[in-house]
Amino acid sequence: MNYKIAVIPGDGIGPEIVAQAREVLDAAGKKYGFQLDYTELLMGGASIDVYGVPLTDETIEAAKASDAVLMGSIGGDAKTSPWYQLEPSKRPEAGLLKIRKSLNLFANLRPAYLYEELKAACPLRDEIIGDGFDMMIMRELTGGLYFGERRTVEENGVRKAIDTLTYDENEIRRIARRGFEIARKRRKKVTSVDKANVLDSSRLWRAVVEEVAKEYPDVELSHMLVDNCAMQLVRDPAQFDVILTENMFGDILSDEASMVTGSIGMLSSASLNETKFGLYEPSHGSAPDIAGKDIANPIATILSAAMMLRFSLDLDEAADAVERAVKQVLKDGYRTGDIMSEGCTQVGCREMGRLIKERI
Amino acid sequence: MNYKIAVIPGDGIGPEIVAQAREVLDAAGKKYGFQLDYTELLMGGASIDVYGVPLTDETIEAAKASDAVLMGSIGGDAKTSPWYQLEPSKRPEAGLLKIRKSLNLFANLRPAYLYEELKAACPLRDEIIGDGFDMMIMRELTGGLYFGERRTVEENGVRKAIDTLTYDENEIRRIARRGFEIARKRRKKVTSVDKANVLDSSRLWRAVVEEVAKEYPDVELSHMLVDNCAMQLVRDPAQFDVILTENMFGDILSDEASMVTGSIGMLSSASLNETKFGLYEPSHGSAPDIAGKDIANPIATILSAAMMLRFSLDLDEAADAVERAVKQVLKDGYRTGDIMSEGCTQVGCREMGRLIKERI
Ligand SMILES: CC(C)[C@H](C(=O)O)[C@@H](O)C(=O)O
Ligand SMILES: CC(C)[C@H](C(=O)O)[C@@H](O)C(=O)O
Repeated sequence: MNYKIAVIPGDGIGPEIVAQAREVLDAAGKKYGFQLDYTELLMGGASIDVYGVPLTDETIEAAKASDAVLMGSIGGDAKTSPWYQLEPSKRPEAGLLKIRKSLNLFANLRPAYLYEELKAACPLRDEIIGDGFDMMIMRELTGGLYFGERRTVEENGVRKAIDTLTYDENEIRRIARRGFEIARKRRKKVTSVDKANVLDSSRLWRAVVEEVAKEYPDVELSHMLVDNCAMQLVRDPAQFDVILTENMFGDILSDEASMVTGSIGMLSSASLNETKFGLYEPSHGSAPDIAGKDIANPIATILSAAMMLRFSLDLDEAADAVERAVKQVLKDGYRTGDIMSEGCTQVGCREMGRLIKERI
Repeated sequence: MNYKIAVIPGDGIGPEIVAQAREVLDAAGKKYGFQLDYTELLMGGASIDVYGVPLTDETIEAAKASDAVLMGSIGGDAKTSPWYQLEPSKRPEAGLLKIRKSLNLFANLRPAYLYEELKAACPLRDEIIGDGFDMMIMRELTGGLYFGERRTVEENGVRKAIDTLTYDENEIRRIARRGFEIARKRRKKVTSVDKANVLDSSRLWRAVVEEVAKEYPDVELSHMLVDNCAMQLVRDPAQFDVILTENMFGDILSDEASMVTGSIGMLSSASLNETKFGLYEPSHGSAPDIAGKDIANPIATILSAAMMLRFSLDLDEAADAVERAVKQVLKDGYRTGDIMSEGCTQVGCREMGRLIKERI
């Protein structure tokens, strides 16, 4: 079986980590009898350098024509890169927002869990870690404040800026259903996060999530305020299974959760639309300071590729094999610099890719 | 010298912790030659029970007529309390939002620091704690999403909710100045937190903060995106001195920061307007589950009272004395249940108040 994969290496460490993910995918293809045909596309800074804009219509069309998109990372150093001299709507990150909207990728899944082998890297004390934790953040990705109308005006000589946060019940319902579906395959617990004591959008969010919950009587639903959730992630991350939340809260909480694991270089993400189509990328950023040095950790991208096999291509066996290979390489004591600890062998990006490929 | 203090005991543990703060204040008054005349006011659930609304105009007027407001905590158990059967605008927390706006309390100061004596309660590993951390979160408290226009409509049978986030340059400038002023008395570092890669309000925020920074050339300014800040608070809290941010980001980040200290029962807060007037309350909530059991920790409220002496009444010596007494009681090994650790003596709320008073 052949599949069309759009590859967006992106900026910073993007190209090198994506290269390793491709190597691993190809090894899995050989073993499990499928072939991935890649089309490389430009986005973010890499696209600005060539086309002057972070995302062209051609890239969007090519992505749409594929079965799935595998992405590295987007953006550069805001202090030094010329990309950040451009107006905000022309900067690398604008490409990211645009591709999400253009491909209708409303469901962003960000797993955050503690790797037993990397416990020492977790910033939390052992008493808090307990038996470990494993949560899935389900972030709404195409609505809310990040996609609302915005404007900056001057009234009587006073500058004023307005952003709007809008959700309708259909947007909430479809992400909520995804959240409950995922919970069903996990520990059957959804924590819906909002600020319903203040915001109208959060009250509608809560009401619709409760309606959806009735379709999933086997899944336990609870509500939590966003400020409290930011505390609970530090106090007791094990209490969470699926965290279901809107765009901005999800942005903040998923980053916090990934740092709480201590292994941000290990965390994958998937952004899905209503079909099987999705865009897969590591949770971490483009780390321009270490780009091109062959020291970046490719594992988050490799695990994102595994998610792609599972969610978009229905290649569960191959996905399992990739995930097993990653676990094995950790057990065997290999580490990139970001997750290095005593007694382990430190390897570079390419070598880490090779070691994982070898274990497929 | 006599001062008029409006006291809002509030709900849950509010009355018992405020009672201890008053005892300590009176002891300080005796020693340092001032007298506080208290007027007790109802707000939140306590006000709903009597007047049917969480905040009456009379309470607002009485608060305005005072030199400062000392508050306990507001709100109850959302699952069981009849207050939460009311529509949102009539619930206890609506009183809190309304008093902030009515008294123009735009500058919310929330210190978050590690108590050397309570290190063991900090959820972070000793390597991350290092030599400890001490930050001040300066949260804008009367603008942004929490005070914007909001509405829920039905369009073609589809429910839709809209909240708006608005800031004008004057609102940003006055809070920024407060942030830089505070930084000047501390380690001279301001981290301004926004989401300028997406929001217009954040771009204006950043621009105005940079303008204000020019008035404070001795203070170092850096910018951080809110999602990154949520990570950095867990990864390396010691990097922060003053965090300056808008209302919602401040809500989320200050709660996260307070949990990171591990001593949320110890953290005070002040909400100030353009004058010396302010409202002082603990950072923690009303903990209805332990209300009336004489086990709550009164220290956050006592330290809020110390802030009141300092900021609103210019009684620095007395404020120092209260803070010293709190430190001494910890050194002497007394702890309430929430901060209890081996080898210490566990005491209740009243006893903790008495021990601190005794040390003034
Ligand atoms: C780059 C930015 C627009 C983006 C977001 O906030 O959505 C990023 O932080 C993310 O979380 O993927
Ligand atoms: C009760 C609520 C409206 C309030 C807020 O979000 O401002 C509270 O969380 C706080 O931080 O003081």
